[in-house]
Amino acid sequence: MTERVVLAYSGGLDTSVCIGWIAEETGAEVIAVAVDVGQGGEDLDVIRQRALDCGAVEAEVADARDEFADEYCLPALKANALYQGEYPLVSALSRPVIVKHLVAAAQKHGATTVAHGCTGKGNDQVRFEVGINSLAPGLKCIAPVRDYAMTRDKAIAFAEAKGLPIATTKKSPYSIDQNVFGRAVETGFLEDIWNAPIEDVYEYTQNPATPREADEVVITFEAGVPVAVDGRKVTVLQAIEELNKRAGAQGVGRLDMVEDRLVGIKSREIYEAPGAIALITAHQALENVTVERELARYKRQVEQRWAELVYDGLWFSPLKRALDGFVNEANQHVSGDIRMVLHGGRAVVNGRKSEQSLYDFNLATYDTGDTFDQSMSKGFIEIFGLSSKIAARRDLG
Amino acid sequence: MTERVVLAYSGGLDTSVCIGWIAEETGAEVIAVAVDVGQGGEDLDVIRQRALDCGAVEAEVADARDEFADEYCLPALKANALYQGEYPLVSALSRPVIVKHLVAAAQKHGATTVAHGCTGKGNDQVRFEVGINSLAPGLKCIAPVRDYAMTRDKAIAFAEAKGLPIATTKKSPYSIDQNVFGRAVETGFLEDIWNAPIEDVYEYTQNPATPREADEVVITFEAGVPVAVDGRKVTVLQAIEELNKRAGAQGVGRLDMVEDRLVGIKSREIYEAPGAIALITAHQALENVTVERELARYKRQVEQRWAELVYDGLWFSPLKRALDGFVNEANQHVSGDIRMVLHGGRAVVNGRKSEQSLYDFNLATYDTGDTFDQSMSKGFIEIFGLSSKIAARRDLG
Amino acid sequence: MTERVVLAYSGGLDTSVCIGWIAEETGAEVIAVAVDVGQGGEDLDVIRQRALDCGAVEAEVADARDEFADEYCLPALKANALYQGEYPLVSALSRPVIVKHLVAAAQKHGATTVAHGCTGKGNDQVRFEVGINSLAPGLKCIAPVRDYAMTRDKAIAFAEAKGLPIATTKKSPYSIDQNVFGRAVETGFLEDIWNAPIEDVYEYTQNPATPREADEVVITFEAGVPVAVDGRKVTVLQAIEELNKRAGAQGVGRLDMVEDRLVGIKSREIYEAPGAIALITAHQALENVTVERELARYKRQVEQRWAELVYDGLWFSPLKRALDGFVNEANQHVSGDIRMVLHGGRAVVNGRKSEQSLYDFNLATYDTGDTFDQSMSKGFIEIFGLSSKIAARRDLG
Amino acid sequence: MTERVVLAYSGGLDTSVCIGWIAEETGAEVIAVAVDVGQGGEDLDVIRQRALDCGAVEAEVADARDEFADEYCLPALKANALYQGEYPLVSALSRPVIVKHLVAAAQKHGATTVAHGCTGKGNDQVRFEVGINSLAPGLKCIAPVRDYAMTRDKAIAFAEAKGLPIATTKKSPYSIDQNVFGRAVETGFLEDIWNAPIEDVYEYTQNPATPREADEVVITFEAGVPVAVDGRKVTVLQAIEELNKRAGAQGVGRLDMVEDRLVGIKSREIYEAPGAIALITAHQALENVTVERELARYKRQVEQRWAELVYDGLWFSPLKRALDGFVNEANQHVSGDIRMVLHGGRAVVNGRKSEQSLYDFNLATYDTGDTFDQSMSKGFIEIFGLSSKIAARRDLG
Repeated sequence: MTERVVLAYSGGLDTSVCIGWIAEETGAEVIAVAVDVGQGGEDLDVIRQRALDCGAVEAEVADARDEFADEYCLPALKANALYQGEYPLVSALSRPVIVKHLVAAAQKHGATTVAHGCTGKGNDQVRFEVGINSLAPGLKCIAPVRDYAMTRDKAIAFAEAKGLPIATTKKSPYSIDQNVFGRAVETGFLEDIWNAPIEDVYEYTQNPATPREADEVVITFEAGVPVAVDGRKVTVLQAIEELNKRAGAQGVGRLDMVEDRLVGIKSREIYEAPGAIALITAHQALENVTVERELARYKRQVEQRWAELVYDGLWFSPLKRALDGFVNEANQHVSGDIRMVLHGGRAVVNGRKSEQSLYDFNLATYDTGDTFDQSMSKGFIEIFGLSSKIAARRDLG
Repeated sequence: MTERVVLAYSGGLDTSVCIGWIAEETGAEVIAVAVDVGQGGEDLDVIRQRALDCGAVEAEVADARDEFADEYCLPALKANALYQGEYPLVSALSRPVIVKHLVAAAQKHGATTVAHGCTGKGNDQVRFEVGINSLAPGLKCIAPVRDYAMTRDKAIAFAEAKGLPIATTKKSPYSIDQNVFGRAVETGFLEDIWNAPIEDVYEYTQNPATPREADEVVITFEAGVPVAVDGRKVTVLQAIEELNKRAGAQGVGRLDMVEDRLVGIKSREIYEAPGAIALITAHQALENVTVERELARYKRQVEQRWAELVYDGLWFSPLKRALDGFVNEANQHVSGDIRMVLHGGRAVVNGRKSEQSLYDFNLATYDTGDTFDQSMSKGFIEIFGLSSKIAARRDLG
Repeated sequence: MTERVVLAYSGGLDTSVCIGWIAEETGAEVIAVAVDVGQGGEDLDVIRQRALDCGAVEAEVADARDEFADEYCLPALKANALYQGEYPLVSALSRPVIVKHLVAAAQKHGATTVAHGCTGKGNDQVRFEVGINSLAPGLKCIAPVRDYAMTRDKAIAFAEAKGLPIATTKKSPYSIDQNVFGRAVETGFLEDIWNAPIEDVYEYTQNPATPREADEVVITFEAGVPVAVDGRKVTVLQAIEELNKRAGAQGVGRLDMVEDRLVGIKSREIYEAPGAIALITAHQALENVTVERELARYKRQVEQRWAELVYDGLWFSPLKRALDGFVNEANQHVSGDIRMVLHGGRAVVNGRKSEQSLYDFNLATYDTGDTFDQSMSKGFIEIFGLSSKIAARRDLG
Repeated sequence: MTERVVLAYSGGLDTSVCIGWIAEETGAEVIAVAVDVGQGGEDLDVIRQRALDCGAVEAEVADARDEFADEYCLPALKANALYQGEYPLVSALSRPVIVKHLVAAAQKHGATTVAHGCTGKGNDQVRFEVGINSLAPGLKCIAPVRDYAMTRDKAIAFAEAKGLPIATTKKSPYSIDQNVFGRAVETGFLEDIWNAPIEDVYEYTQNPATPREADEVVITFEAGVPVAVDGRKVTVLQAIEELNKRAGAQGVGRLDMVEDRLVGIKSREIYEAPGAIALITAHQALENVTVERELARYKRQVEQRWAELVYDGLWFSPLKRALDGFVNEANQHVSGDIRMVLHGGRAVVNGRKSEQSLYDFNLATYDTGDTFDQSMSKGFIEIFGLSSKIAARRDLG
């Protein structure tokens, strides 16, 4: 029987060429799989037909937007996951859901190999291949760009020679990956890290410097899940979409950073993630009100490890599952309303309301009603500082 | 011989009353010590004279602004210290430098006790007393507000009865602590955490929503120390002051948070720290370029513990010294220029330049000149993901 | 109505005297509660009757041995909990189960206060009172030894004056706390930390230096739970008891350490925990075989925090619950057999067998059957070390 | 000019064959470098001559025993470095010192490449190559066993064909690496992890089960450095050697573990490290007496990361240097005497004496002289447990 290869298909030039390229290199039949994670663009049916026209023996398309929001973006939100304290893992989150669909297609169609369009110097190749290995240890992985030296120029030549039904225009100067949780942009002139980004780079966000009216929003969470926006019930996907629109209109969520890739190099990245940043900011503020101090302190470390692990492509790892055990327990009481002003590139929380609040007005207030027993402090201070004091007696001796 | 008490003196009503109050409660002579950490306000000589007029047997004043910037704010900057990821430890940093002067005065004047004006439900009492215990384990500590129930009303009555040379106007609705690294405000109406702050609360920062021209600044660091602003050499104090002015004029550095106090309660705090936030943002961005990945990842954990420790009043503890050993080593190569736009409440880095850069254009670029050997990736991915893959074979079995 | 106080009752002199002492100090009725956590000694009915004879208005006794083993010792085993890397938390684990029974009795009998026999300088007062506060925030706590200066001498005098039915012999030189998970001993001559312990100190363990035959045991775990010993099904309690006997007979589990108490002082402690040490050693060895590397590395940190938290009396805290979320997930595959030799004070694992094993003979072997693809290593090494190499190019420049 | 390759040379069959093998594969001249890290065996001059006889154009030998002890074993001791809580990093510590000598020789002799005898599935290839890359980013690395498929059988055939002056006896069943800090053994029958090791495996340690007299030793440390044994001044090397002998004679320091290799597989390892284990045990016990609690708690995490990093071959990494900054600061007061009984496979501390002790008899004692103010405890407990109590009010509501 002819070998079969499942290809992660986007509908663009490169993966369209991959269909024929892989067939020629390997003699295998190619099955194209396109997954909608909210990246926008063409209709799935159009993409499906193009795959077939380009020579795929089968083409599968999946609307995974809700799955992506519920099972990938939401755990990231509960973990306030920001790689290097900034990047909400946009691409890193979409890879595992795509992997799941690729593996399912491979199993359905009896494929032995999965192919993807990544280069050999980025994080995504690792995320795809480690993910595939973790879900289906028997599948092989290939990456034509990396393994068969399929450059852009060669891809254009191939498309023209074969008369593939796809435009072979000059490449955009931007290398882009986007989904409902955000958008990543790399481009030549920004590889000089002294150069500032220009407005042309952005699509999900308006210029924050443009004067406009502020927008105030109230986000309601239940056990860490955003369940309503301004009182209207929403799914997680809808929450992200609405905040992408409203926070994006205010220029919220632009990031410009030099990032440590898993493959050991530093790279300059521009991100836009208005909904993700607004939601994480609100979620953190609600945690400040509803999570006990020692749990909150420890959770910050867990969050960092969670973000590193997912950035590093280890979504399906045993450690990820155990960290989720912690994170879910910690989110149990993260319920309530956060009021936030979106304006001028900032998402600023200025009100919190929660039936699960640990903020106790009567303990906090300096006014009438104060119930804090200040006489307890003397003993606390004495014993809290005792080990330091004993050390000081020695070290100053 | 009469006992002597050193009092942390601000020049305000409460600590002015403390002079006589402590004398009456304890029979001791009171020595007033005022420390300038950049809080602004009255001249030190005026404050000194008032202390004497209120009955102090001695009064010491110290301009500790450079000491504060160099020995307290700078280590915090090197550690990117943000308690709960947000608060740059404004008050927490000033307490140990004040403690140092109080202890020196106690030793100089043969005092057995140190007094401070804190209440019994905040963090500062702990910071003062643990600090004093750590520098001079033999000194006793008293806090008239906490220990002798010296309320505001009683203080006013005392001042009027004794004819103290200080205005006994109604208390401002705001409880404020400020120094060159920032300003903290608490006030009654914000104790309802659903209420938003009003403009009246702020002094160090302009309203970020007011349209104005952006300000671009270049900050130069050497081994983690800010040494120049826009090419002009500066001391650490000058760097903070200039950025307070320029970032403050753009509304940068406002914080509104519910915070976990050391004494176990949550409280609502408003902070302004334009210089601190601008400097830390720039320092982090330069670290992204100059610090190796594994060191950077570990440093984030050290930073969190550093911030918690200093917040908790353990500045003089053995752990703090050992963490500084780590932080100083990690800052050795954090040298270079950061270009940053201050505007609309945001401090946004958009350029980095460093002779110590670990960003390697030729490894990062996708254009001509690429030196990254992509054939290495296959082996990396295989072995990097191997332990997860082996676990997957079991867990999916 | 007369106030009621629930007293943690051991049946010994001190808590027997407490019954009357508390009544006199507070005018309250005293309800004695004795909890069997495997400390051995008198029959519960005898203890119950003595409490009544000493003036208790009610006396409750509970055999909590299985509850203690299943709900307190087992989570500690899953977390390999060793405070300071050595101490298996013997007393720290028993306090929360006793607290649970005290609080239940207080609620049943309408008591407003709970009393315990601890001094004011140890950890146990914190564990009792923080535990009680966490389960029943409205209950008050008293400790007659600490709060009413009830010294041993005064207690003896009281017992004799009132004719209490309890021997008032001279105090043993040893201060002892014991339960099924181990035994803690403090005593005067060991407060000189240069002095070595003598055999007289020990009860759960034989002298490891005495020559005797080795004992080999196979312990079977399912998902982290010890379920069989030498093939015979056991409860957790039975597993601990059998290993106490067998490992104790070989001198396993003696500890002599200087320990950091929560109240800020260092103290010398002697522990015996043969069953606990044998079980934890076996559990760790099985984890080495069944837990994936990154999960194993992270779990070590979680274990340390878990042990500190429980040592510090925060059993009922939100952080403890979230850490348990992690620990339980991590134990899911910890199933299999561990063979262990008990001899001469050592518990040495020398065989492991598990259907959940991640040890792969064919990957590990250097003999025939090797399936490890060594050609992958070159790429792995290159990329794994790349960030260090780039830093080295700079740092050696 | 002919290329030159520096070869890590042991004097054994495999690396002797490598000399000619590399020459044939690459056409390069081979320079043999042998480093004495206390592995025992032949005289360095004999080894040097054999290299030349086998065709090396140059042969360098270095007695690096003191360098190894002072600069590699000592930092590990200060960090109480035990990978997976057990393994004192024996081989992992020796690789960087050997790397240093290889790189120095390469620079001296103008070599472009370094060769080593490791296979492609172990940790040591990573340690060699990442180390070399970190000290001399321009050098290439080759491993004939891995890269040129130089199997044992082929090596024997090569040696016989070329008449190399080295015995080509059947390979010992044991694969051994040893140095002054310990000895590692792998062997076929132990690859079945249910099999127990046999006495034949061990060389550094006597059977702990053999009855013999106990040996008591006093080890003196200054700032974490072992400086005397039983009162006689020693170098670090001498301390390790003496304790290897004395602890080894008592069967101390045998380890049998399943270990997580950096290359992603689990392997069975037998170690003997009598001196290392005795010294680390003593050092830890002295830290318990001289290091403040919070520093001690944090140091445990640093120790784990230090051990992982060095195990993973990142000795020359920036993070390693920064962790050493912490560890050295933490060792500043680790001075004093530890008395330890070596017997029956156990190294048991039973006495500590230190002028830097933080153990305060008067605070710890329950006897006359107690200076601990127990009245402080009430306030401490109340505030220490407050955040948990507030959470409990909610969670039980």
